[in-house]
Amino acid sequence: MASFKKYRVGNKFKLSQIDPGDTAFCEGNEAAQREEIDALAVELDELQNLLHAEGKRKVLLVLQGMDTSGKDGTVRWVFSRTSPLGVRVAAFKAPTEEERARDYLWRCHAVVPRTGEIAVWNRSHYEDVLVPVVEGWIDKAETKRRYAQINDFERLLVETGTAVVKCMLHIDKDEQRERLQARIDTPGKQWKFSMGDLEVRTKWPAYQRAYESALSATSSEHAPWYVIPANSKRHRNLMIAQLLVKTLRQMKFKAPAPDPALKGMIVK
Amino acid sequence: MASFKKYRVGNKFKLSQIDPGDTAFCEGNEAAQREEIDALAVELDELQNLLHAEGKRKVLLVLQGMDTSGKDGTVRWVFSRTSPLGVRVAAFKAPTEEERARDYLWRCHAVVPRTGEIAVWNRSHYEDVLVPVVEGWIDKAETKRRYAQINDFERLLVETGTAVVKCMLHIDKDEQRERLQARIDTPGKQWKFSMGDLEVRTKWPAYQRAYESALSATSSEHAPWYVIPANSKRHRNLMIAQLLVKTLRQMKFKAPAPDPALKGMIVK
Repeated sequence: MASFKKYRVGNKFKLSQIDPGDTAFCEGNEAAQREEIDALAVELDELQNLLHAEGKRKVLLVLQGMDTSGKDGTVRWVFSRTSPLGVRVAAFKAPTEEERARDYLWRCHAVVPRTGEIAVWNRSHYEDVLVPVVEGWIDKAETKRRYAQINDFERLLVETGTAVVKCMLHIDKDEQRERLQARIDTPGKQWKFSMGDLEVRTKWPAYQRAYESALSATSSEHAPWYVIPANSKRHRNLMIAQLLVKTLRQMKFKAPAPDPALKGMIVK
Repeated sequence: MASFKKYRVGNKFKLSQIDPGDTAFCEGNEAAQREEIDALAVELDELQNLLHAEGKRKVLLVLQGMDTSGKDGTVRWVFSRTSPLGVRVAAFKAPTEEERARDYLWRCHAVVPRTGEIAVWNRSHYEDVLVPVVEGWIDKAETKRRYAQINDFERLLVETGTAVVKCMLHIDKDEQRERLQARIDTPGKQWKFSMGDLEVRTKWPAYQRAYESALSATSSEHAPWYVIPANSKRHRNLMIAQLLVKTLRQMKFKAPAPDPALKGMIVK
């Protein structure tokens, strides 16, 4: 297995260091890779059961990326073997009026994972240091303040028993063009397309810079960012599944010990 | 395929009409049944995609049943092929202080499915016409009032675009004994066991009567109840998967029509 080190965002991080077409975590032929994804999904299910049985800790997977970068597909494949009982997905869209009337972390805090649960955030609080930055709604001082608030918020989650895994799904502009075009050209996929996607696409370089800055500022020791080369969907799934499985393994769940109080008990 | 008619709760319903050991929906040998469950799970995933693509309606699956009747197992197997993106599970436990401070439908209304989503309720508002009835906390007049409130609430959901499917997982007392004993005797399963389960078990006949009464009073035209023979786990899964697939098929989703505005559009 390849090492995650290179993909973990450090201090002087540049997005250009990571090739979106990289397939370092793909080993063997296609069939072998599909089998591996399935095996990882099965292991993830087993680990989630242990997380639930332990009943003490939580896991949060944050997925960020440009339109079409594969956030939905990641959820589908990485959790293809997990019962919906243990995985809760929250999708963050443009904030509603109710949400705008609170601080930007309010709606996120409302859906943090509960004990024994894996929460997946399809977009997240990071939208609030991307869109407003690109659109010029907040200045540098406010952006910096938000980075610090985000680090504090995530520290709270980690200190109260949540493992936080953050993945930026990294595709290049050509790959996005092909995926958007496929949505336009396939009647069954057109509902996924929105004209707004094209507008955001025109701001590609500004978004890349905003990501670079946000990832650098918030890749903390307690909640690091990983950049996931995602032009290849299989690579994306494999790498994220491996990262998540590794994280849960490191939580070292103990198989629950036999309860002496139940020894020899007979149900009538 | 067997007919659901016999299992749909009507006016003069008695729980004793349905044998918990019934396996009417199991056809062929074990391998064939496993294949069928998987095929139904795949179809359910396709139907959920159409529900999401249509973006207008919702589905609510209510699961009720005594402890160990298999509510968790149903979720795992019926939705084994569905992306966690489209299925949201809510588990209702004893109400918290916050919840008790509102009417009993408040916490349910908070988690109704959103457009395009299937919500699964592991227990539900029906707990509030079971536990308080058995414990004698509410009298007949209040119980009757609640039945009417529940029918009104479900009518609201149906009239605003939700298909409501309600299943009572029907096991017998012997089957429960075996399942509870297995939890006690298997260290890896002990965490699922609670001494409270044994106490509820002593009130088995009272709970059966409360179910009978509640099901009869709330098996409406718009939101009927089905009693699912559930001593056999495979039968339970097959029957509920078939019922759900049938319900979604009847919603007659149209494949989204090509959008003329997108014809020939080229992404740059």
